[in-house]
Amino acid sequence: MSKITPVILCGGSGTRLWPRSRASKPKPFLPLVGEQTLFEATVARSGDTATFAPPLVVTGVKHLDHVEAQLAGAQGATIIVEPSARNTAAAIALAALRLDPLDIMLVCPSDHHIADGAAFTHAASVAAALAAEDWLVSFGIEAVTPETGFGYLRRGEAIGTNGGFRVAQFVEKPDAVRAQAFLDSGEYAWNGGIFAFRAGAFLAELEAHRPAISTAAREAAAKGHAEGQRFHPDADAFARIESESVDYAVMENTSRAAMVPADMGWSDIGNWQALHDARACDADGNSIAGRAELIGCKNVLVDSDGPRVSVIGLDDVIIVVDGDEVLVTTAAGAQLVGKLSGAVNQ
Amino acid sequence: MSKITPVILCGGSGTRLWPRSRASKPKPFLPLVGEQTLFEATVARSGDTATFAPPLVVTGVKHLDHVEAQLAGAQGATIIVEPSARNTAAAIALAALRLDPLDIMLVCPSDHHIADGAAFTHAASVAAALAAEDWLVSFGIEAVTPETGFGYLRRGEAIGTNGGFRVAQFVEKPDAVRAQAFLDSGEYAWNGGIFAFRAGAFLAELEAHRPAISTAAREAAAKGHAEGQRFHPDADAFARIESESVDYAVMENTSRAAMVPADMGWSDIGNWQALHDARACDADGNSIAGRAELIGCKNVLVDSDGPRVSVIGLDDVIIVVDGDEVLVTTAAGAQLVGKLSGAVNQ
Repeated sequence: MSKITPVILCGGSGTRLWPRSRASKPKPFLPLVGEQTLFEATVARSGDTATFAPPLVVTGVKHLDHVEAQLAGAQGATIIVEPSARNTAAAIALAALRLDPLDIMLVCPSDHHIADGAAFTHAASVAAALAAEDWLVSFGIEAVTPETGFGYLRRGEAIGTNGGFRVAQFVEKPDAVRAQAFLDSGEYAWNGGIFAFRAGAFLAELEAHRPAISTAAREAAAKGHAEGQRFHPDADAFARIESESVDYAVMENTSRAAMVPADMGWSDIGNWQALHDARACDADGNSIAGRAELIGCKNVLVDSDGPRVSVIGLDDVIIVVDGDEVLVTTAAGAQLVGKLSGAVNQ
Repeated sequence: MSKITPVILCGGSGTRLWPRSRASKPKPFLPLVGEQTLFEATVARSGDTATFAPPLVVTGVKHLDHVEAQLAGAQGATIIVEPSARNTAAAIALAALRLDPLDIMLVCPSDHHIADGAAFTHAASVAAALAAEDWLVSFGIEAVTPETGFGYLRRGEAIGTNGGFRVAQFVEKPDAVRAQAFLDSGEYAWNGGIFAFRAGAFLAELEAHRPAISTAAREAAAKGHAEGQRFHPDADAFARIESESVDYAVMENTSRAAMVPADMGWSDIGNWQALHDARACDADGNSIAGRAELIGCKNVLVDSDGPRVSVIGLDDVIIVVDGDEVLVTTAAGAQLVGKLSGAVNQ
């Protein structure tokens, strides 16, 4: 089997982890868990050259500097520079058009955390084997809580011999009652936005289900130009691509949708509480980055870029100091951070 | 009756309102309630020249710059510069020795807040009338909560015709059960450390009950020297004065102890929660100084010297930003602020 090409998607508006994450330096480019940034960790995760080809990164022009700086160690990496934001169907289509039709793509968001790299590698190899048989494969992330913020995959019949399944159903974000029922049934996994397929297989399905996107994407690729490690799609053609998710445009429509279960300590780090969950904590559940002193606190996250933070008597609270902004929120309130005027008016 | 001389005591270590209050600029010199500092408000409160003589301030050398800067508008003010810290008996003795024995002193701490200035002025005039009859008068602050952090005065028989009483008993800080009993009985008032007496009467009682303090204080005054508006007691003699509170040295021993009730919106601003209580709040009990945005918060105090503070979902929490320090505490935890290493190791 040929090597797998990691296709790393870099976007993000930087509101839910504000004020650490800002429009000018969003989530993928921050060292949120451990010393690497989420982007660097994503690149490193598929850095084994025995298994993986050099990565192909898709990003917007405004994040290009961060991407190039943080790609420094990745030999042979290339970058597709999106002239505008057109969602994941467009990004993946452009990547597929830069590869050989037989190449296997492993599409990875760059703003997720995966604690268990070996489990990721195993799932990637299972997915790649199915992709080689022209399945379009989603990672089915083991659901551990009744999340209402994710789409779900319902497991269908087994395929292959390594633990793959057909996808019986793609489910949009459920309400709390349905999410709990999904969790209880054991038949559902989270759709984490990680995919594997042959470039040609993806493009064929895109052509079948979204011919307009396919045509515009082909034109954007054909009229684009390379410049060193960068590839610039044609801006006019790219702008005509309808903004759709890959799930909606392709995965939910193809008859060849498959999934591989992935139990790998995954988190989308979707808000400060999710980040707290992903970070190492002491026996009281407290996690400190920067200078802090805590008295009588439990499950408190402190993340300060400079000032010392002194905290007394609080439970389940998140405190973030970043330059001229201080955020203090309950764990439950972390979902509302993106609505703060500081986050909105960046 | 001669005019009343305000004797304003300035000390404070700046730990309980840390990080806003620091050793280098403690509580009296900060604009904690309204636009004036507590010290400026104390001076202004007895600024009516029809009733009051110019103030006599007693302070340590390390706060002299703050005192002189903030006394700017007080005509004829004088300052006793303590060469070391020797508690209130020493401070008041030195002040008394700089006055005529018949002068009436009104001793006022400079780190308290008094919301009702007219009630203060009325209590001061009642106290001065009793002092003119050689009573040693304490303000009996109307007790409104079962505080365990204050001393109490038990009301004795009425004296004079303006609402003064003998003090039946001085009570040290009680436990919670006794404090509640005091409050329920209606016979007890808080000892707020505000006193009125003739200089000569005070010195006579000091001589009777603490002859060693009296002797050392007289020597410190006699060997001291004036320098413009400042008076410097002799450092060696001053250092020999035993460090005692005026309550312990004089008020609890004299047979001429009186009290005047004072219901004047008093607070010692003894911690951040007390400051929150003294500040203006919105309908949700929130109080903001500096830039802040609150979502779903009740009874939250924000006090920031620069950075914007965004708060979500918290009740009964205090957030203070001061330079390189951020404090986040529950209302109940506010009592522990002085134990934080930031407050201790200033």
